[in-house]
Amino acid sequence: MKQLEKLFERIVSRTKINLRELDFDLDKYVKDILPLEQLTKFYSFYGITSHHPIHFRFKNSNLAGSYFLGICNVENSILYKSDIRGDELKLKDESFQFQDTEIILDVDEIISIKNSLLIKTLVHNFSHDPEKIDLFLIKNTISCPYANIHGAPMDGCFLGPFSTVDLTTLHDCVIGTFSYVQAGRLSHTNVPSGQVWVKYGELFDFKYRFPEEELRHYITLKPGEGAVGRFMDFAEDRKTEFQRLYNVVHLDSPIEVPLGASINRYSVFLGQSHIEENVLVAQRAFIESSYMGKGANAQENCYISESRLEGYNVTAHGATIIHAKLNQKVFVGFNSFIQGKKDCELTVGRGSIIMPHTIIHLSDPMEIPPGYLVWGYIKNAEDLKNNSISLDRLSKVKDKIEIGNMTFKGSGAVFVDAFQHRIEHILEENGAYFDGELNRGHAQMGQNISFNIIQPYSRGPLEGLYPSIEIQP
Amino acid sequence: MKQLEKLFERIVSRTKINLRELDFDLDKYVKDILPLEQLTKFYSFYGITSHHPIHFRFKNSNLAGSYFLGICNVENSILYKSDIRGDELKLKDESFQFQDTEIILDVDEIISIKNSLLIKTLVHNFSHDPEKIDLFLIKNTISCPYANIHGAPMDGCFLGPFSTVDLTTLHDCVIGTFSYVQAGRLSHTNVPSGQVWVKYGELFDFKYRFPEEELRHYITLKPGEGAVGRFMDFAEDRKTEFQRLYNVVHLDSPIEVPLGASINRYSVFLGQSHIEENVLVAQRAFIESSYMGKGANAQENCYISESRLEGYNVTAHGATIIHAKLNQKVFVGFNSFIQGKKDCELTVGRGSIIMPHTIIHLSDPMEIPPGYLVWGYIKNAEDLKNNSISLDRLSKVKDKIEIGNMTFKGSGAVFVDAFQHRIEHILEENGAYFDGELNRGHAQMGQNISFNIIQPYSRGPLEGLYPSIEIQP
Repeated sequence: MKQLEKLFERIVSRTKINLRELDFDLDKYVKDILPLEQLTKFYSFYGITSHHPIHFRFKNSNLAGSYFLGICNVENSILYKSDIRGDELKLKDESFQFQDTEIILDVDEIISIKNSLLIKTLVHNFSHDPEKIDLFLIKNTISCPYANIHGAPMDGCFLGPFSTVDLTTLHDCVIGTFSYVQAGRLSHTNVPSGQVWVKYGELFDFKYRFPEEELRHYITLKPGEGAVGRFMDFAEDRKTEFQRLYNVVHLDSPIEVPLGASINRYSVFLGQSHIEENVLVAQRAFIESSYMGKGANAQENCYISESRLEGYNVTAHGATIIHAKLNQKVFVGFNSFIQGKKDCELTVGRGSIIMPHTIIHLSDPMEIPPGYLVWGYIKNAEDLKNNSISLDRLSKVKDKIEIGNMTFKGSGAVFVDAFQHRIEHILEENGAYFDGELNRGHAQMGQNISFNIIQPYSRGPLEGLYPSIEIQP
Repeated sequence: MKQLEKLFERIVSRTKINLRELDFDLDKYVKDILPLEQLTKFYSFYGITSHHPIHFRFKNSNLAGSYFLGICNVENSILYKSDIRGDELKLKDESFQFQDTEIILDVDEIISIKNSLLIKTLVHNFSHDPEKIDLFLIKNTISCPYANIHGAPMDGCFLGPFSTVDLTTLHDCVIGTFSYVQAGRLSHTNVPSGQVWVKYGELFDFKYRFPEEELRHYITLKPGEGAVGRFMDFAEDRKTEFQRLYNVVHLDSPIEVPLGASINRYSVFLGQSHIEENVLVAQRAFIESSYMGKGANAQENCYISESRLEGYNVTAHGATIIHAKLNQKVFVGFNSFIQGKKDCELTVGRGSIIMPHTIIHLSDPMEIPPGYLVWGYIKNAEDLKNNSISLDRLSKVKDKIEIGNMTFKGSGAVFVDAFQHRIEHILEENGAYFDGELNRGHAQMGQNISFNIIQPYSRGPLEGLYPSIEIQP
């Protein structure tokens, strides 16, 4: 396993060089972050469909338990149980709009991961960097479990557990535990843990920070121990349910799949669940005793239990929904954690937006009215008052508003409009509006994926490394 | 499936051109030979070990159910449930002895399969063609179920079901059903069915031909129906036992594996079996209620049932052994079919050689003495007299001997010596003599193979074709 150990050390030292100007002790956190002996145990897999162009290149890397789709290049990296979903990359001859400029791609965009260590990380969407529209590059970067890299090229970064970088180009940054950043471009910045930050140039700036003491119970990164807390325990508990999926090559669908819907064969269904047309359930999603209405979706690492989603619901990567009733077009953002209980349900009204990285953890039933924006840490109706605003009211904000720990600056109307526009776009991309012929999206294109399994050397000096592989159409 | 259909037609038409001078109606036999819709159903797999150099290149091909090991290149071909075992290829800097000349390889040898259709065919060993020592090329060739291509480069050939080409370079040949050819070099020849032919230059020439009427019950190639007969029924019966192996990714060993032994995870074990040290059981071998002594082996497509192999037994590719007791160093050649019954066992004495393509089908118990050579079609002790000779007696033949349908010309001593030398070499290659440190062979090197699974496009115009794949160390 010599080569693999060397690779790990090299990734750490290169990332460290990038982060040298920040007050951040990388060594302290990456020590023992990865049990190297686990890396020979899990196979890697990639999907082939007739809908997405493919081109996979893997070189001098370990890919244990990771999944690839689309056009991906991985070099000198360790990708542990990560999802590299290249099914939204820009294609040759497509145009990319940046402000007033339209740029036409002359090649297919590629996800390229170099000298990086990604642990249980999701990589999705496409590069939003106008300077590099055909290259979604992740380089000299280390990410912790359940980080999301969403349309966010980065170089020299450390992403804490359950952090999300969304539509943002990063250079030499630390993104703290459970922080969400959507800021366009960021460099040489140490984002503290529990920061939720959405900024769009001078147009708006949404900021909320979780109370540190409370967040610690849910998720924290401990030197020598790695990510710990309720979130990790929760993920650990459902792990065994997934294991059986990985040990069989073909699997019959666990549930009736109606027209236009697709259930990834690496998703878990428990209890009695029902899905409607155009539902999308991604790999590593977990659905238990729930109803998913037409066009609802559950992305990677979602957990939906004892819940009812009425339709056209977006459940973004890593979101958890337990004992909740979501009316139509409710959006639940990345890594949100909604935990009701039996006889203590959450109800969310039509069109409400649960911001990414929201924790709703109830001991009483609670109702969120239709058309609300909700964020932060909410245990009851009292907290809700300090962590929500109606979209109508927010739309009227022109300058600044502060509610609880949240500060919003800029145009509320632009913020609401941008958010709603994005939700519609996600529904379109996911195929929620497929009519049997038009408006095809991921749900329809994911129906006929062939899964291919690749394995590392199991012995010798190359133990744990995968052979060099190149796969083209 | 358009592209796949085109590919099939192109292979047929190219092979037909090569065979145009022979009186052989290829179209008649290949029509409906392959159910194209089956070709999208099965995955292909390749093995990675730290013992063999690897380099796989697959392009514009269907590989349904086929297995690859070593250095293999496949282009414009259909390989259906075939085994391409590149673990005996010559390596860079090794020397190849041809008569008095020693040639040093300047690159690793490669198995290259182009414009060919191989059905349930085994490809193994290395090129024995002194003109092309680094290229084991199979081109414009169609082979039927359970054909063996063993160290035999070929261009423009048709191999009937259960035929074997061994250490022979072929050009524009038809090898009939259940024919075995080991002749060094052969071109523009139509070998009739049931021919067993071993020729080594001017040194010796062994020839036997099965009675056509009797062979037909065991195996025949019918226009429009493909291969039919007892052999095919037999293979069909054990098919379901294999299916479960293909549907799981990891599989615990079905039996205790002692030091130096290896059991391929794509082999079937039924009933109570026992294996000793240095035993090798290859993929697609089937072992039922049998004992395999130290250093015994069972190659691809072997079936061993209710039998006892005392040790250092070679069971060559495709051999079937039922209700038999083989003493030490008994050799059973390619595609031999030994069928005893309960209370009607076959016993084979130490060091006896069952020639490739021998059928022993008993209704009374029978004993083959030690040190005998046995061939042809044997139903009882009476037949045995006409189908065997002691190795001692054969060694004394200097010119010619005829026994039953068998004619032997040349030096019996050279024949016996060459055969025994080859058996020893096979035992060495298989690792039968491994002492815990030295004399490592396939049994030891096969212990830590990682299996990788690749799949074809499941929809669209490329349906059934595999993406282009290149895998290097």
